[in-house]
Parts: sequence; C-alpha cells; structure tokens
Amino acid sequence: MTADWNLVSAKLVHEGHINVVNRSYVTPMGSDREYEVIEHPAVVCVFAVTDDHKVVLVRQFRPGPGRFCTELPAGLVDEDESPSHAAARELKEETGYRGTLREVGKLFTNGYSTEVRHVFVCTDARQDGEPHPDEGEDLEVVNVTISQFHELVRGGEMTVTDAAYLAMDVLGLL
Amino acid sequence: MTADWNLVSAKLVHEGHINVVNRSYVTPMGSDREYEVIEHPAVVCVFAVTDDHKVVLVRQFRPGPGRFCTELPAGLVDEDESPSHAAARELKEETGYRGTLREVGKLFTNGYSTEVRHVFVCTDARQDGEPHPDEGEDLEVVNVTISQFHELVRGGEMTVTDAAYLAMDVLGLL
Repeated sequence: MTADWNLVSAKLVHEGHINVVNRSYVTPMGSDREYEVIEHPAVVCVFAVTDDHKVVLVRQFRPGPGRFCTELPAGLVDEDESPSHAAARELKEETGYRGTLREVGKLFTNGYSTEVRHVFVCTDARQDGEPHPDEGEDLEVVNVTISQFHELVRGGEMTVTDAAYLAMDVLGLL
Repeated sequence: MTADWNLVSAKLVHEGHINVVNRSYVTPMGSDREYEVIEHPAVVCVFAVTDDHKVVLVRQFRPGPGRFCTELPAGLVDEDESPSHAAARELKEETGYRGTLREVGKLFTNGYSTEVRHVFVCTDARQDGEPHPDEGEDLEVVNVTISQFHELVRGGEMTVTDAAYLAMDVLGLL
C-alpha cells in the first residue's frame, strides 16, 4: 500500500499566476485516480533575528485572506536560482537586511500543490540599506521581540505558520 | 498604509476541484491590484492523542507532493457544517477514533488562497470502530509516540506542519 503511485499524465487546465494541472495516477492496485494539482515553484522563507533579538518581519496585504498579515520575508525561487540565493535576495529586497543564512528545513505546503517551502534562519541580521520590494508589493518592515513573534504565530496572524514554528523549534526558542 | 484594500470585483477563471478567481482590489492610495486567488472552503485538522500518549495519524498518498505523507487527520468543512462537527466526523471517518475535541487555533494556509485551517486537539482519543474513508482515499492509520511525531514534523514529512506545531505548542509538548 505504501508503494508510490505512478503518474501517467498531466494536463494543464488553467494557466495564469496560478497554474492548475490535472494529474492522472495509477495506484499499485491498478486503480485510476485523478486530481487537480497546483504546479508551483519552490519558495523560500526567512526567520531573521538581529543581534538585539528582534525578528525582522514584513506587514503586507494578502489577497487570499483579504487582509494585512505580519509575515516572515518570503518569495519565489527564480528559475536557475538556488534556494539560498533566493533567501538572501528576498530578505534584502523586502527588508533591506542581510546576514548569514542557514537552511533548517523543507516543507510541503499543501496536499494538492507541488509547492515546497525552504526555511532559512539568519541569526546575525543587520540593516544594509533600504528595502526594494517588487513593483506592486506594499511592504512595511516591522521588528518584534521573539515573545511578540510567538504570540503572532499562535494567533494565526500570518500565512507561513509552518516555517515560523520550524525556525523557532530548530533554534530552541519554543 | 494598513487600511484594508477594497475588493471591487471577483471573476471565476477556473472551475474544478480547485477554483481560481481573479480578484481586483483598490488600495487606499487608489492603485489597482489584480491577483489570482484560490477560493477554498475551510478545512479542519485534528491532533488526537490516546490515553497512552500515542498520536493518531493517517498515512496517505498526496497528489501535490507526489508521494506518501504521514498526516494529521484532516478534511473539508461541508456546507452548513460547523468546524467542530467536521473535525469529529473526519477523525471518525479517517481513523475510527473519537474523543473530546477542542479548537485551539485558526490559521491562514496561503497568501493566495482563502483557505482557513481550524486546528483541533483531542487528548482522550479512543478507537470506536473501523475507519470509513471516502471513496478514493487509501488511508493507513498509524500511531506514533509524541517524540516520533515531533521528528516527523521537523523532517517535513507532512503537509500540515503548521497545525501540528500549533497543537503541540498549545499542549506544551514542544
């Protein structure tokens, strides 16, 4: 029962900012299964802490929830880009901060999406210029204490709760 | 800058198992913004622990990651159903277990999806019959210790890492 299923076809059924693909699998018992799946590039997410123990966050409007969320800096991994390069780039673009980055885990984000989230920590974050967000991104950089951050995570105030918890767990902050 | 944006139109651009909607927002500064957003019902996820401290999980093939994952029991909230009813129903259907359920949090799952995940804990889970999964769900019920569960969560072996961490955090298991 735990042998992997065989992907026999994949057909793009919606192309846009979100791509939906119809995947057909055959199970080891010979049954056919069809699912719609979102095909999504990998993403990175950075838990960056300054020398004075502040977590560097971005407050931004999120179109799905339809409200502002206070989030870890995050973004897509570009084609031909490594996750660690993407993490440094997104941290710099969204917050103006830089530091030493370390990947601490990789998460599946949804049973019906190919999206994988690479989680990075940066424990020596320092400001190195102004943020330069992409066009259309209205971001406000917010620094909070670790205990305030923990409250935001528990309270469901972000869309990347998984990465936030994983980073705090690996750093022994829970 | 933190005033909410105004949703001015929403157009269904893909209808299927996954529904994609094109949302147009106007920002408080008067700019237009367009996003594709997945419109998704609420979901429930249950962290159920037995009297002998075993976490009740389901091992199942996940079409997005394209592999088997060991997950918390979870599923959609049906129309006109309360999240707590859905949590009890999904736990029973997927695992055959029941117990006293308590909602411990509500999470956004993605910046580009309307999906909200209601997280429940059940600390007196007991088997009360066989699982009766929906047609097409090939599930294997797996019981693990809390420390084994923590390793699965850290290792990225599931798609609901956020709910798993939140439940352990609220129960003081981290």
